[in-house]
Formats: sequence, structure tokens, C-alpha cells
Amino acid sequence: MSGTLFGLGLGPGDPELITLKAARLIAAAPVVAYPALAGGDSFARAIAAGLIADGTREIVLDIPMTTARAPAQTAYERGAAAIAAELDAGRDVAFLCEGDPLFYGSFMYLLARLSGSHSVEVIPGVSSLTACAARARLPLAARNERVTILPGPLPEDELTRRIEGAESVAILKVGRHLPKLRTVIAGLGLLDRAVYVERATLPDEHVCPLAQAPDIAPYFSMILLTKGADPWL
Amino acid sequence: MSGTLFGLGLGPGDPELITLKAARLIAAAPVVAYPALAGGDSFARAIAAGLIADGTREIVLDIPMTTARAPAQTAYERGAAAIAAELDAGRDVAFLCEGDPLFYGSFMYLLARLSGSHSVEVIPGVSSLTACAARARLPLAARNERVTILPGPLPEDELTRRIEGAESVAILKVGRHLPKLRTVIAGLGLLDRAVYVERATLPDEHVCPLAQAPDIAPYFSMILLTKGADPWL
Repeated sequence: MSGTLFGLGLGPGDPELITLKAARLIAAAPVVAYPALAGGDSFARAIAAGLIADGTREIVLDIPMTTARAPAQTAYERGAAAIAAELDAGRDVAFLCEGDPLFYGSFMYLLARLSGSHSVEVIPGVSSLTACAARARLPLAARNERVTILPGPLPEDELTRRIEGAESVAILKVGRHLPKLRTVIAGLGLLDRAVYVERATLPDEHVCPLAQAPDIAPYFSMILLTKGADPWL
Repeated sequence: MSGTLFGLGLGPGDPELITLKAARLIAAAPVVAYPALAGGDSFARAIAAGLIADGTREIVLDIPMTTARAPAQTAYERGAAAIAAELDAGRDVAFLCEGDPLFYGSFMYLLARLSGSHSVEVIPGVSSLTACAARARLPLAARNERVTILPGPLPEDELTRRIEGAESVAILKVGRHLPKLRTVIAGLGLLDRAVYVERATLPDEHVCPLAQAPDIAPYFSMILLTKGADPWL
């Protein structure tokens, strides 16, 4: 009997935002696997740390810090092969994902490589999108409103065009793009409606108006921009 | 000491997709509150049923089934008053929300009415967006891709325009709008990329290509449309 690969969403960072299902599967897994950036710590493993039993086998996918695709492809090929070997030996593998596995998550690269040959199940998690909204206490959308999700690295003209035509906007992967994003949003006259959320649900979380945000943001930061959702029904 | 109102996201339906934090708060709550449609059952209460302790006080918000705003406003005014009375008596109240409290959720109507006068905390949950993607095993977005979330009741011309200009699309609240949505998507030549997900994570879940979906969909259904996300990195 071959094992099953579980892609587990662990939520935005607070270990209590792990689902009951993910917690059960982590505790029972003979093998856990997770990405780590360039030999550094793994945020996904840190979220799940309290649930991993002693003696659990661990597979680390060292993801190189580069925008070039080939080195990352190699890392996922190697990771997929190591995971496949465990599955073939009959052991389930719990792959730990920060946030949700398929919302800007790296699990899709393993899903593409392993779902044709092995049993794979995806367990959704709390995404950064709703976690940031909860911490900012800002309704994302109601009734027939539209939500647009944009990554911060997009070029300035595209960001301007897309924010202009949108209702509720969430901008992910803010990081070093914060000054550009603030310029775009201010240029559209929307600065007073924009909220900045950094490291949502973690002990060093920071929430403030975008106008007061630092110039250099961490990777785990988001801008929420609502153009006037009416929370009064 | 006044109590705290907790807006708890319970996830898409599978009780195991409740977070550890929401489960703890429900079990400890002296009072739970939840919406029910027009005197019928409450989906939110059904998700949490196994966690509600005997003797817990329950406040039901009967939400009338109409698109007119005034009757629903009255229901939320009454619910807010009943919840405020419990908080003023020093009791915490756990408000149960299907999915996530602030992603097309009714909790915002209580947040607007009570956050000025009482302690309110929002606990994010697994949204239908990532739950449907997980069940369809369809990556929502990677790298710098954009995601557009559209409600099904929008007019045909607006849906056409927004889907045309988008990358990854999720259409919520499909229900009786399914034939219209299928016509729009087929007209754009995208029918073979569209997946239909009904009652994700529940025992009677149904996932299929949109071309094969039933003409009459339940309220809890979604269409996912990706225009070619490359899951191979």
C-alpha cells in the first residue's frame, strides 16, 4: 500500500489558527516535509512545531533565493523524489504550507509532479487574505462587491490600472515594493482608505494606516484597500 | 467587566476545518449566536454543533430571505441588542460564521454596530475560496498572478468585461445564475478551463467541469477559472 501526500495549509502564523484536521494529520504523520529558504529556518515548520511528534522523519526542501526558475525547479524535483520514496514505502507524508496550499503557495509544484502517480490530498488553510482582514477588522467584501488580489511586484502602470477599476483590493507580497505601492495609491487619491498589515496574527504583528507604514516592509505584509464597502447593510 | 464578542470563522462546512482557536472559544463560550435563514436551520450552527457545550445560551438571528435591506437591518439591530445585553452582563459571546467572518460574511453588520461600544475580536476561518480550490486541486495563483473574485448575480456585460481582463477568476454565489455564467464563459472561449464546485468539503460535495454542471446550483457553489497558471514553476 502506497502512502498519501497531504498538502496542509497551516494558516498565517498563529499556531492556534491551524485547523483540527491539519493538527490531527501532522501529529499522526510518520514523515513531514516543508520548504526552507536557502538553508535558513522554515516558517511553515515553526508554525507546526508544537504538533510534530518526536521521531518524525523530516524532509527539508531548500528553496534557493532567486527569481530564476531553474534552481527552484531542481529543488522541487529533488523534494518530489524524496517524498515519492516515502510514499512508495507506504508512509504518509504531511507537507507543511504557510497560509493555504494553493493560494500563492509552493505546494502546487509538488501537486503537479506527484498527483499523476500518487495519492494526494489538499487540506485548505486560513489564508493571509482573510487573516489580514480579521486583524485590521476590515470587511473584504459584501453582497455583490468584487475583490481584486494583486501581487506588489507588478509594474506601476498595471497596478494603477487594476486598482482604478477595482472595488475591494488586497495587495500581497508588499516587501520592498511599499514605496511604489504608496505612490500609486496616493496618486489615485485613495491613501486615506488603505491599511497596512505586517506579520498578521504573529506576536510582532503591526497594523496601521498605509500613510504611516515603514518604507521597508517584510515579505509577509499586505495592503488592504476598500473603496467604501458599507458594513451597515 | 464587560464580555468580548468573538466573530468566529468556522470554515466551509467540514467540522474538522474549524481552527483550534475557534474550537477552544466555542467550547468555552457561555453564549453562542448565529444567523439562520427565515426560521430555518443555521448552517453555521450545524458546523459547530459538536463543540457547543450543554447549557450554552443561544441567540438566533433570523435573517429574512429577501434582497430588500430594511427587514435584514431590523434582524441585525435586534441581534446586536441581544448580544450587547450578554456582553454588558459580563458574558463572552461566540458568533458563529460559515467560512470567514469578513469575506462576504454577515459578521460585518454586527462589527459595525458593536465595535464602538464593546470589545470585539475577529478570528479568521478557511474561506470557501481556498476550500473550493483544494477540493478541485486547482492552484488559484502563483508568483505575480492576479486573482479576481466576482459574485454570480452581477450583470452579464460586467461579468464578461471583468473575466476578459482577469487571470485567475473565482465566481461565488453561483446558485440560479449558473446558466448565465456558463453562457458568459463559453462566449469568451473559456468553458474548457472552468471547474464547478458545489458544497465543498461536505459529504454531498460535487466537483466537475462547468460544462457538465447542473442548470440549478445551490447557493454554496463556485466556479473556478484559471487561464493557464503554470504549476510546473
